[in-house]
Amino acid sequence: MIIVLKPNLPAREERAVLAEIKRLGYRPHIMRGVSRTVVGAIGDENRHPTLEALRAWPQVESVTPVQKRHKLASREAHPANSTIRVRDVVIGGPEIVVMAGPCSVESEKQLMETARAVAASGARILRGGAYKPRTSPYEFQGLGEKGLKLLAKARRETGLPIVTELLSEDHVELVAEHADLLQIGARNSQNFQLIVAAAKTGLPILLKRGLSMRVEEWLLAAEYVLANGNRNVLLCERGIRTFETYTRNTLDLSAVPIVKRESHLPVVIDPSQGGGRADLVSAFCRGAVAMGADALIIEVHPNPREALSDGAQQLTPAGFAALMDDLRPLATAVGRAIAPPEAPGKPLTRKRVE
Amino acid sequence: MIIVLKPNLPAREERAVLAEIKRLGYRPHIMRGVSRTVVGAIGDENRHPTLEALRAWPQVESVTPVQKRHKLASREAHPANSTIRVRDVVIGGPEIVVMAGPCSVESEKQLMETARAVAASGARILRGGAYKPRTSPYEFQGLGEKGLKLLAKARRETGLPIVTELLSEDHVELVAEHADLLQIGARNSQNFQLIVAAAKTGLPILLKRGLSMRVEEWLLAAEYVLANGNRNVLLCERGIRTFETYTRNTLDLSAVPIVKRESHLPVVIDPSQGGGRADLVSAFCRGAVAMGADALIIEVHPNPREALSDGAQQLTPAGFAALMDDLRPLATAVGRAIAPPEAPGKPLTRKRVE
Amino acid sequence: MIIVLKPNLPAREERAVLAEIKRLGYRPHIMRGVSRTVVGAIGDENRHPTLEALRAWPQVESVTPVQKRHKLASREAHPANSTIRVRDVVIGGPEIVVMAGPCSVESEKQLMETARAVAASGARILRGGAYKPRTSPYEFQGLGEKGLKLLAKARRETGLPIVTELLSEDHVELVAEHADLLQIGARNSQNFQLIVAAAKTGLPILLKRGLSMRVEEWLLAAEYVLANGNRNVLLCERGIRTFETYTRNTLDLSAVPIVKRESHLPVVIDPSQGGGRADLVSAFCRGAVAMGADALIIEVHPNPREALSDGAQQLTPAGFAALMDDLRPLATAVGRAIAPPEAPGKPLTRKRVE
Amino acid sequence: MIIVLKPNLPAREERAVLAEIKRLGYRPHIMRGVSRTVVGAIGDENRHPTLEALRAWPQVESVTPVQKRHKLASREAHPANSTIRVRDVVIGGPEIVVMAGPCSVESEKQLMETARAVAASGARILRGGAYKPRTSPYEFQGLGEKGLKLLAKARRETGLPIVTELLSEDHVELVAEHADLLQIGARNSQNFQLIVAAAKTGLPILLKRGLSMRVEEWLLAAEYVLANGNRNVLLCERGIRTFETYTRNTLDLSAVPIVKRESHLPVVIDPSQGGGRADLVSAFCRGAVAMGADALIIEVHPNPREALSDGAQQLTPAGFAALMDDLRPLATAVGRAIAPPEAPGKPLTRKRVE
Repeated sequence: MIIVLKPNLPAREERAVLAEIKRLGYRPHIMRGVSRTVVGAIGDENRHPTLEALRAWPQVESVTPVQKRHKLASREAHPANSTIRVRDVVIGGPEIVVMAGPCSVESEKQLMETARAVAASGARILRGGAYKPRTSPYEFQGLGEKGLKLLAKARRETGLPIVTELLSEDHVELVAEHADLLQIGARNSQNFQLIVAAAKTGLPILLKRGLSMRVEEWLLAAEYVLANGNRNVLLCERGIRTFETYTRNTLDLSAVPIVKRESHLPVVIDPSQGGGRADLVSAFCRGAVAMGADALIIEVHPNPREALSDGAQQLTPAGFAALMDDLRPLATAVGRAIAPPEAPGKPLTRKRVE
Repeated sequence: MIIVLKPNLPAREERAVLAEIKRLGYRPHIMRGVSRTVVGAIGDENRHPTLEALRAWPQVESVTPVQKRHKLASREAHPANSTIRVRDVVIGGPEIVVMAGPCSVESEKQLMETARAVAASGARILRGGAYKPRTSPYEFQGLGEKGLKLLAKARRETGLPIVTELLSEDHVELVAEHADLLQIGARNSQNFQLIVAAAKTGLPILLKRGLSMRVEEWLLAAEYVLANGNRNVLLCERGIRTFETYTRNTLDLSAVPIVKRESHLPVVIDPSQGGGRADLVSAFCRGAVAMGADALIIEVHPNPREALSDGAQQLTPAGFAALMDDLRPLATAVGRAIAPPEAPGKPLTRKRVE
Repeated sequence: MIIVLKPNLPAREERAVLAEIKRLGYRPHIMRGVSRTVVGAIGDENRHPTLEALRAWPQVESVTPVQKRHKLASREAHPANSTIRVRDVVIGGPEIVVMAGPCSVESEKQLMETARAVAASGARILRGGAYKPRTSPYEFQGLGEKGLKLLAKARRETGLPIVTELLSEDHVELVAEHADLLQIGARNSQNFQLIVAAAKTGLPILLKRGLSMRVEEWLLAAEYVLANGNRNVLLCERGIRTFETYTRNTLDLSAVPIVKRESHLPVVIDPSQGGGRADLVSAFCRGAVAMGADALIIEVHPNPREALSDGAQQLTPAGFAALMDDLRPLATAVGRAIAPPEAPGKPLTRKRVE
Repeated sequence: MIIVLKPNLPAREERAVLAEIKRLGYRPHIMRGVSRTVVGAIGDENRHPTLEALRAWPQVESVTPVQKRHKLASREAHPANSTIRVRDVVIGGPEIVVMAGPCSVESEKQLMETARAVAASGARILRGGAYKPRTSPYEFQGLGEKGLKLLAKARRETGLPIVTELLSEDHVELVAEHADLLQIGARNSQNFQLIVAAAKTGLPILLKRGLSMRVEEWLLAAEYVLANGNRNVLLCERGIRTFETYTRNTLDLSAVPIVKRESHLPVVIDPSQGGGRADLVSAFCRGAVAMGADALIIEVHPNPREALSDGAQQLTPAGFAALMDDLRPLATAVGRAIAPPEAPGKPLTRKRVE
């Protein structure tokens, strides 16, 4: 910690600060500058109590931590990129993994139709919400357990592993039984009890960034998973809240290189939530692929116009197929690959699971 | 809903939009303007499915809801101010209720000393965190159940009802057993499962505003409590996230008159979290009182310099007493009152509870 | 400056950083901590070139300035409150000065009617826009010079000094001839050429905060005035841009105590621009008075419904009179005063100017 | 305009609103819904006075414009992409144009060295600041006219057209004499007097987005250029202000597809200002190219560590050359091209100008 003292401090006041630094287990190191005296507190900030309470002292102008607060999530602790396995799908390697499916699971027909379509176009993981967090209590809240069962059925039919949102500590057992990848949504990005409960299932976690979460806070939320013995965390950017009103959120693609720099964990982009508009999804995916994202998670609905949630941001199956065709050469140009589509008229060749 | 169509739409395309509006149960009403055709969809937006999915239609430029989404929380539904009772303390009436106590419960000595001091200065409710949501997993997470028991003991000693944060669905029963007012923290402001579980205890709820929550979203979070049969919600502003870095958050005092205009629910201001600096608490409280806040929740610690959390923002008992003396004439000037201090040397006169 | 080095740096790399620090005129002071080496660069940051370019060095993790960048504007440089004189009106003393008048000068009748009304209710300075910055080129841009002449006429009639916005370097001479206080608007808050030109007139400057200006940047904009030999700066908060859409801007009343702490310059609140809604003006003024603002600037129009700009935020003369009556006891409660209304039926008693 | 009335309005009050709508030249069209009455005001919002002042009426709940406020800048008015010519360089066509050069012109040696290097690597326009807007009055403010002359000299040597910032109405003639493309900086993005003065030179304008400018406001600032008879506007995104502190600004790459959708004007990305960090420039450029940007403007300095401004964000000439090599295949993958580097050892082959 670096403690900057107020100017012109009486010696007695300065000694009191130094005594407190020692009391908390640090060795104070004094530097006298032109207009300020600066004290370095030498000691492990992770072992000793924080010195941040010194901010409350009238003698102190500022307190600046020197050590990074995220450890297990940091690139410093783990210089190589991490890869995360979701059943047989590896995220963080040379393949750019595409997850796709409806915002909400609405019916068997809707889900199966979507699942088959996205699998045929090269999606590797099926997304679908069974429990939906909705801003208003009067909006569709998801099919719940019935939705989970439909997702499991879709997995049996298509071979695609399932990612779905975990909303409640009370659902952990049930959701973990059906899902292959647990999503923690933006609204729960600092619901640490839920994050820890999810971590303890041992399943990989897709951790969405909160609407106004700084990158450091996001990495610290991931740290809650890692510190609970689960090393399988995917960091998913899905739009931040800014002053702009043209889109529902502002997709922060700058998060891709920043997270890559600060952390070894794979980065996922959600272009559907990111802008809330289907007509922006394609450009957002192109940016994400070019900038180094490891995976995309895209909303697809057989008939977005009749969707029970977020219709405005979901692609049709045909739109999704076209997007995948559009992205493959771009992935190649950055030295990566996106799974090819199934040959038309052929049965799905991927191995069935369960 | 008001649907604005794209300009120069072929009649066939326009008919398709009108058909969809009818299919969803609304009666379309066409207005042809100079550059745009606008369709009003007549029907109860709370009974029929939302038309927002029309935003996904290429024929449509914009969709604007007309009805307010919050109903039970709205001033329109309930023109008079609501009052909320926390044991014998009434919030939302002529008294400006002050809640005070430490950020975290740290020890019996620390809590009792604080509780007696704030009671003596006129606080009416004791605050104290037993479960603490912390940005980093390596920070102090609270005393848990032991903290709750200390809070209950402090209530027996001082007569002050207890407000403490509920962090987890798993703690509902335990926390509800000891608390008189359940706080839902800013990080859980859209954790609807937790909010509903809290609502069902029947205890009054102090609902903090999320860091980047629009007022409408905050009222909709309150709507989750009200729609679950619990009418006792306090809305607590505690600083929003902006671009400013001088303070940890930016206290949005404009929320006071805005919430008062839109809702009948009482408004509470948290000046301690609001700026994260003890030296700003007094000015923030003065603003809150003058602008119509119904309650304040203030962090007080016998020795803020040694606090295990948020030392920089906690007042000393003496600082709190001075603040209360400072606020009383201001409350009078706006036609309200703050409880007087206990006469020095006298035993506490308020009735003991439990 | 405090320079934190990357961990595990070879000695050669560290020496290169130290050599650069010396080259730029500073004396490096090394502190070896547990996980990082920190270098204090001792020297006057105001005399030597900045070390911030070290951020570009691969050896460097972070660079933190120690000295404050604003000097003449700082409370440290000038511990007592500054008072600013606008003709015979003193801002920053015990009186809370109210400036009032229309958003735009629209006609002689409109201006005179407003000027007389606000003078009668206790306003001490007349506001009115002659040149208007408008988001769209198709909106009313102000009466220009004709507006200035009407303002001067209103001053002759009422004795109230004039505050009006300076929009362009080309208008400096003309506006300075008619105005007593030059407003630099939010959109020009970092138009340093305009600020310097305004400063050089010698007139006092009302410097509005930009929509997304940090307090430090605002003080540095004021520093441009002070460093050009004009010590008469008023800092005016008028709403910042946040994610909230209920109001046009979010009035940041927390700026009042923050600026008071960091600077000696008087603080003005603009409650009309601040929220963009007349129905919030009263609560905003009450907060401002209670929190220590030195002045208010309030938009008043004889018929807001027909205003050529910003009708939604302007008060009627009757509304303004009621507001002033409402604020006086509050000012008294915080130990200050607002000018009393003129006795009805009497001629204005203030001395005529020019 | 769509005017939503308050619920349960007496007929008399409703009639008053209708009368006002008629008075302002619109034809009111009434729709009675379930909970609200909505009035469409039929008429050209660009010909008649705005109805927004109705927001001030107690009878009115909301006023929503239907027509877009930007006209000449809109895609609707001009469906094809515009191309802008800067001397012989065409922006908005198949080529992705790269502008490069130092943040500030510091010396002849520094500028010539940079200009030759960036030309050799495929840059098509030379950037360099002669007048610098600086947050603090104590920072380097640019070489002024001397800088302009050096830029003109660099153009003679390399054939590259010049883009430089116009800071002041007083500099228009001088800057226009030397520059080929006038930059309006972020701080002046709503300095309409400066924008109009720049527009009137007839030179093409590079209009940077303000730090907290909504896309609509940015297009309206461009509208000031277009409405003054100059159709040559480039829209440059350079980072917006958010809550994130890891980077100085948050580069909003989503602006690329949004502007492309709303407007026909070319889009430029500034990855240097965008993040304020050289190590992010490459990823930002890749995103920009993939998402459809028409040009990039990149800061390059022969020795960023010794730069007089913004050293942390400037690339070395070698770094710039590597970046260009990196971007070319990506441009090809999206069907566009970036100019090839000069053959090594050969003289520059582009035609000399002046």
